[in-house]
Amino acid sequence: MNTFGRKFRVSIFGESHGPAIGVTIDGVLPGLVIDPDELKKEIARRKSGAPGTTPRIEADEPIFLSGVVGDTATGAPMTIIFSNENTKSKDYSKLVDIPRPGHADFVAAVKFEDFQDYRGGGHFSGRITLPIVAAGYIAKKQFSDISINAELIEVGGVKPRIPAHAKNDPEVQRVIAEASAEGDSLGAIIECEVKGLEVGYGEPFWDSVESMISHAIFSIPGVRGIEFGDGFAAARMKGSEHNDPIGEDGIPLKNGAGGVNGGITNGAPLRFRVAFKPTASIRKEQTTYNFAKEKMDKLSIEGRHDVCFALRCPVIVEAMTAIVLTDFLEISDL
Amino acid sequence: MNTFGRKFRVSIFGESHGPAIGVTIDGVLPGLVIDPDELKKEIARRKSGAPGTTPRIEADEPIFLSGVVGDTATGAPMTIIFSNENTKSKDYSKLVDIPRPGHADFVAAVKFEDFQDYRGGGHFSGRITLPIVAAGYIAKKQFSDISINAELIEVGGVKPRIPAHAKNDPEVQRVIAEASAEGDSLGAIIECEVKGLEVGYGEPFWDSVESMISHAIFSIPGVRGIEFGDGFAAARMKGSEHNDPIGEDGIPLKNGAGGVNGGITNGAPLRFRVAFKPTASIRKEQTTYNFAKEKMDKLSIEGRHDVCFALRCPVIVEAMTAIVLTDFLEISDL
Amino acid sequence: MNTFGRKFRVSIFGESHGPAIGVTIDGVLPGLVIDPDELKKEIARRKSGAPGTTPRIEADEPIFLSGVVGDTATGAPMTIIFSNENTKSKDYSKLVDIPRPGHADFVAAVKFEDFQDYRGGGHFSGRITLPIVAAGYIAKKQFSDISINAELIEVGGVKPRIPAHAKNDPEVQRVIAEASAEGDSLGAIIECEVKGLEVGYGEPFWDSVESMISHAIFSIPGVRGIEFGDGFAAARMKGSEHNDPIGEDGIPLKNGAGGVNGGITNGAPLRFRVAFKPTASIRKEQTTYNFAKEKMDKLSIEGRHDVCFALRCPVIVEAMTAIVLTDFLEISDL
Amino acid sequence: MNTFGRKFRVSIFGESHGPAIGVTIDGVLPGLVIDPDELKKEIARRKSGAPGTTPRIEADEPIFLSGVVGDTATGAPMTIIFSNENTKSKDYSKLVDIPRPGHADFVAAVKFEDFQDYRGGGHFSGRITLPIVAAGYIAKKQFSDISINAELIEVGGVKPRIPAHAKNDPEVQRVIAEASAEGDSLGAIIECEVKGLEVGYGEPFWDSVESMISHAIFSIPGVRGIEFGDGFAAARMKGSEHNDPIGEDGIPLKNGAGGVNGGITNGAPLRFRVAFKPTASIRKEQTTYNFAKEKMDKLSIEGRHDVCFALRCPVIVEAMTAIVLTDFLEISDL
Repeated sequence: MNTFGRKFRVSIFGESHGPAIGVTIDGVLPGLVIDPDELKKEIARRKSGAPGTTPRIEADEPIFLSGVVGDTATGAPMTIIFSNENTKSKDYSKLVDIPRPGHADFVAAVKFEDFQDYRGGGHFSGRITLPIVAAGYIAKKQFSDISINAELIEVGGVKPRIPAHAKNDPEVQRVIAEASAEGDSLGAIIECEVKGLEVGYGEPFWDSVESMISHAIFSIPGVRGIEFGDGFAAARMKGSEHNDPIGEDGIPLKNGAGGVNGGITNGAPLRFRVAFKPTASIRKEQTTYNFAKEKMDKLSIEGRHDVCFALRCPVIVEAMTAIVLTDFLEISDL
Repeated sequence: MNTFGRKFRVSIFGESHGPAIGVTIDGVLPGLVIDPDELKKEIARRKSGAPGTTPRIEADEPIFLSGVVGDTATGAPMTIIFSNENTKSKDYSKLVDIPRPGHADFVAAVKFEDFQDYRGGGHFSGRITLPIVAAGYIAKKQFSDISINAELIEVGGVKPRIPAHAKNDPEVQRVIAEASAEGDSLGAIIECEVKGLEVGYGEPFWDSVESMISHAIFSIPGVRGIEFGDGFAAARMKGSEHNDPIGEDGIPLKNGAGGVNGGITNGAPLRFRVAFKPTASIRKEQTTYNFAKEKMDKLSIEGRHDVCFALRCPVIVEAMTAIVLTDFLEISDL
Repeated sequence: MNTFGRKFRVSIFGESHGPAIGVTIDGVLPGLVIDPDELKKEIARRKSGAPGTTPRIEADEPIFLSGVVGDTATGAPMTIIFSNENTKSKDYSKLVDIPRPGHADFVAAVKFEDFQDYRGGGHFSGRITLPIVAAGYIAKKQFSDISINAELIEVGGVKPRIPAHAKNDPEVQRVIAEASAEGDSLGAIIECEVKGLEVGYGEPFWDSVESMISHAIFSIPGVRGIEFGDGFAAARMKGSEHNDPIGEDGIPLKNGAGGVNGGITNGAPLRFRVAFKPTASIRKEQTTYNFAKEKMDKLSIEGRHDVCFALRCPVIVEAMTAIVLTDFLEISDL
Repeated sequence: MNTFGRKFRVSIFGESHGPAIGVTIDGVLPGLVIDPDELKKEIARRKSGAPGTTPRIEADEPIFLSGVVGDTATGAPMTIIFSNENTKSKDYSKLVDIPRPGHADFVAAVKFEDFQDYRGGGHFSGRITLPIVAAGYIAKKQFSDISINAELIEVGGVKPRIPAHAKNDPEVQRVIAEASAEGDSLGAIIECEVKGLEVGYGEPFWDSVESMISHAIFSIPGVRGIEFGDGFAAARMKGSEHNDPIGEDGIPLKNGAGGVNGGITNGAPLRFRVAFKPTASIRKEQTTYNFAKEKMDKLSIEGRHDVCFALRCPVIVEAMTAIVLTDFLEISDL
């Protein structure tokens, strides 16, 4: 199943080293105007190049195959593709036999009977999040008066003083430089907050807001956990501490629930945190199994990789959130 | 949408104080034999009555309306219902105007335009997890050689010495008794481990194992967070620490990933932890808005409620896990 | 998959000789008021008892398990069941080994590995259309200003003078009496017309109005064909004859297209015809294979059966049409 | 919803005069080998150029964006696109204001609030059936020992002597030449037969074989009716005539049911007929409404159009049938 959503539906396709990766979006409002510069800005937020990110630079130019006339959406399925140009497939030649720890190499080979495109992670590559950013941009345009803001609140165990400028935080830069020097990698935590949501997004039980958000967020490669509002800390609180007192118009006076009761938005900001693991590909030597030699082996991954790929992920978390909320918006007629 | 799953599909219906609650299960294997005693044992695990749980006792007798002849599944949709008998609707009379903090009362009234069944939480009641346990039992029967085991690893901040016997742990009993005396409530953390899974469950991206498990788990009322393998701790680890070295046959030598790479099971046990909030209904006085009086008010919830509803939830977490895995099993032809 | 629809979703369950058959409906508008007498009238239209129909009389009393308080829908999943009381299972004892021509006995045994409920056709029984009539009633209540009207326009090759009173037409009664005397059965054609539809129901391509209507209509046991507007006759017309000239406001001046262009309603009445086969169960001797004796055999079906089950089907065709249109209505925000 | 199927899933996108049209296919078996020449042969069967078809010639060269390495499927989503090169958009300039009878111009303008791509019918164009042929080719490759064969059995009311060579039949050529000379168009009937199907494809009720086939077939622009086996004639037959006697191994001895009982294949060939309307675009003058002038008007459509587009449709009917059957095959584990 390569599709997510019920009415605002996002389908992805493509491999890291194939001709192109892309997305088809169903349920775009006819008449929605796309601003190419805005879209490029969103794409740029995911780009590599900063310290801690891979030096593989792609043009990442969106090509609209369908669903628009000029810059205006028609309401028909919208397909956006991105060419893969800067590929160095020979880097991956030995991975066929020597699966990389922390990667999908081994499980993909089993599941797809060795027919998977192993180059650059194939369909499992983090590059597939590029069309997600494009879909997220379209999603964000479909509603107004809602702000979605995701920020790095912790990188390699360090809390940046200003989460929105985590990349420039000297302490963050220091741990990145250290990990880079060791040929190692770092994880991070991203917090996302959505303001301006009306009461009533989400459905009871299966399609609760948390269910749909977590479903989408765990699709992002490298996510290890998600928590809403007080999250895991709520398990150590008493009801009298965790419960949010209800104020006028029914809006909660604090936000331990993260903006959701019974799976449905309650008028407070939606708030959740996402744990990203450290980048799996590291230069530091690791232990793996060599299927060609039929014995254990050592692996040092050269290639071009992020020290902390999560630095590029706030815009992806926002995109996923926008995709989920737009689907709720369309399905619930809010 | 009251349905979850793609091929093994579970639909729920019912309200806490309506005539019955139930479940319809699609995709049951023809010929599957149901053992009524086994099913009752599973249902008993969810039952109230222990210290920390509500004294509302229901017979919880499953009634099969369709999909079986004798004790054998036919392959047609299987509907199982449970009568609601022990209901005290008058307890809830004042909740129409005074929404309970931590509950769905307010959002349900907005979303369903005051037509929701407010008695006992209606369709939002935790009682809807009873048919989930029944569906989970059917799911567990569909595969062999897999063990699913969920345990309380923390209650009210206390780690029981033997998670499988958390209810009997003296320290756990003490914090429950204290919270009960205060008219307050407690949260908990449940860990679930699945052994015996083959490599290959799950799909790349949208329908990753983590996506589907978290989707189902966040449907359980009161869940605040979920993490797989090293979870949030992974965000503070280096790649060389978090990555699982790969051993013979490709199976990982440790389990920081929680048994999943690229969204697909890797042969190690699937392992995740779920944070449950404290019970929302407490005797202790809380602040809320009185819609009848159009002003802020105080609320003390009498009724019959669990001090720590999570004590009843390990079997529900197992049921949800079984439902997701059976769907993967059927959809992937493993 | 026992579910149809995207937002107004109808799931069925039950077997002819099980405890009950029923339906769960998702997407019912909160506040919708059910009139029990209206519902009973719809159910009565499907009832047997008239010449040409089976003498098996059931109370057909709808029992609401969920989704209503009093007679008002809450917006939660609505489950309606009907008890099966008047069952004579011994009539079917020999059918395990001797599949009935024109029935699903043989295919069900193969598909469900002999575990199907063979009594009364089990889940394949026409009795499953009873909950469909209930769901159709709910669907009809969800929109206003639309009339759905299905009529018998041909019975056993005879065109009744007044389609709405086909059962009382003397010529129709004559062919039914003849077929009954011979121990044989008759087919029929039903035409359905929907007036008052706005322009814009339906989606391009996969979910065209004709696609969704035909999908639902072919679910009714015994349907052999469907055609819209000029139907099969259109294949013998020229474009200048078949095309509908367009009048003021874009509404067509005639209705060769049956009210649909490009899969989308065009403002003219939706009009289609459905061909029903003759009842499969007949007293007249037929040839079949005796799996017990492992040789060809003769079969005369006694039991209680309709001479022309299609006499009971106009309300079922209307129900299916209402279910499809309500789903389009909800999904398209018309 | 631009997607069809449950496990073998086909999504389409594109407009007649946009940069490209295409298809994404989910559920392709890893390791499936694509023969580019075979695919081109299928595509050629849909091509125009023969008498009765439009002179618009496109290269119709399939471009694989994802899901293959070399000619071998990886199991990841497969996207195939076709460039639109030979477009003459100026031909359509006046259609914005003057909707063409028999076309979706008017309904598309209403539904998509005038934002639709009106050029060449946009997303409603018959050109969207080109990627369907490609998807049908992939579907056909997924199973073995099944033959799907669709033929023109009637063109403009004329039955060709050899259906497989209808285009060369002198009588067919005569009626086409006549209609062409008059600036008019013709309809046709296509029969499809599938041999080699095992017993057990299809599901009871909603997802019957007839439901799914008709759903897909009515997606093809210009279909007016479908009937299985004896079809509409069954409505005039007696049960003793229409019922298929059952022979050894349960296989029917004749095929009035068209190979399906209770929605499930019964071992006889699947057989159905499809009615195609005459091409809507004709040179002959028609009546329509001129929205610019706000009055009735006359319209003669010049452009390049098929006299009988159904001549190009047998391969499309086969493709749709293959798509449905492959989905059944994958979903039922036959």
